[in-house]
Amino acid sequence: MIKYPTKKGDYARPSVGVKNRGMALEKLIDESNAHYLREGHAVIHKKPTPVQIVRVDYPAREKAKIVEAYYKIPSTTDYNGVYRGVYIDFDVKETRNKTAFPINNVHAHQIDHLKAVDAQGGVAFLLIRFVHHGTVHLLPYQALKTFVARAETGRKSIAYDELKQEGIAIDVGYRPAVDYLRAVDALLKGRP
Amino acid sequence: MIKYPTKKGDYARPSVGVKNRGMALEKLIDESNAHYLREGHAVIHKKPTPVQIVRVDYPAREKAKIVEAYYKIPSTTDYNGVYRGVYIDFDVKETRNKTAFPINNVHAHQIDHLKAVDAQGGVAFLLIRFVHHGTVHLLPYQALKTFVARAETGRKSIAYDELKQEGIAIDVGYRPAVDYLRAVDALLKGRP
Repeated sequence: MIKYPTKKGDYARPSVGVKNRGMALEKLIDESNAHYLREGHAVIHKKPTPVQIVRVDYPAREKAKIVEAYYKIPSTTDYNGVYRGVYIDFDVKETRNKTAFPINNVHAHQIDHLKAVDAQGGVAFLLIRFVHHGTVHLLPYQALKTFVARAETGRKSIAYDELKQEGIAIDVGYRPAVDYLRAVDALLKGRP
Repeated sequence: MIKYPTKKGDYARPSVGVKNRGMALEKLIDESNAHYLREGHAVIHKKPTPVQIVRVDYPAREKAKIVEAYYKIPSTTDYNGVYRGVYIDFDVKETRNKTAFPINNVHAHQIDHLKAVDAQGGVAFLLIRFVHHGTVHLLPYQALKTFVARAETGRKSIAYDELKQEGIAIDVGYRPAVDYLRAVDALLKGRP
């Protein structure tokens, strides 16, 4: 599943990699989703950050100002939507670790949510970026769950090599920045 | 599409109607979604209210306090999720008007979003409650769009009788409080 450069063209767009290096994966995904929406390829949005609102002032009529609020832990993943009639649901993760992705980066309620989505026939996965390698991988819930099960008694992380094996490598380019729907296509192809 | 009581049992749960009368439809939908999730029937959640966060204080380590924020206009609908593999997307509306539902209750960007979802093969609709009649109706996007088109040059609302004709009546009961997935079943049955 590793994409080795096979032709000169693969080296011909280094500026993109450099430009994107400092950006969080979420920002690249948001850009990709805007691209997909514009082109009519998919309707996928990031959910708003959940906030517990405690106090609201009304300094002027019709203008509410929130003056006390706290971040809440999301009960689901951050992204969902529809692609060719299919429900898509995922969360985005990044690690600066060079050799492994620690499973405790994924909240228990997110795993529960992905499991419920998978059981309902949706496409559930994580997008994981290894910052040092500059690679992005789609890890389907079906593969994630075996690593989660292993973590109960054994290793608490997914080795980079395992992720390359069990995940699907995603092109990081220009438009869209992270073309993860190609990896979803590969997942859907394997469906009955 | 109107459900007349046909047996004694239909009158045997009046406490529910009374109990629910003062509750906003959104709360009943949230309860219904919790029921669907528990029973493994569907995974449908309300999105968090979008908030523009301007200033955050850190009165204590690890405890962020938002001290200035404003409500943002949502760019999509409030509810989405997956039911039997199908993507579901809708917004919830209530009116105290007895004879019609004013179309300006639906933001232009919500109509755009429902249109994009419909084009992508998702199931897009509104749930509309007439408070005075105590009725809830599912209005599919395909029907909504004809009323939206009409509003450009003609009538700016959907008559209650039109909604009964073009929408699907939904049972308001106990568990779930608003069994709108039965109406989605009816919609899906008409699919190729």
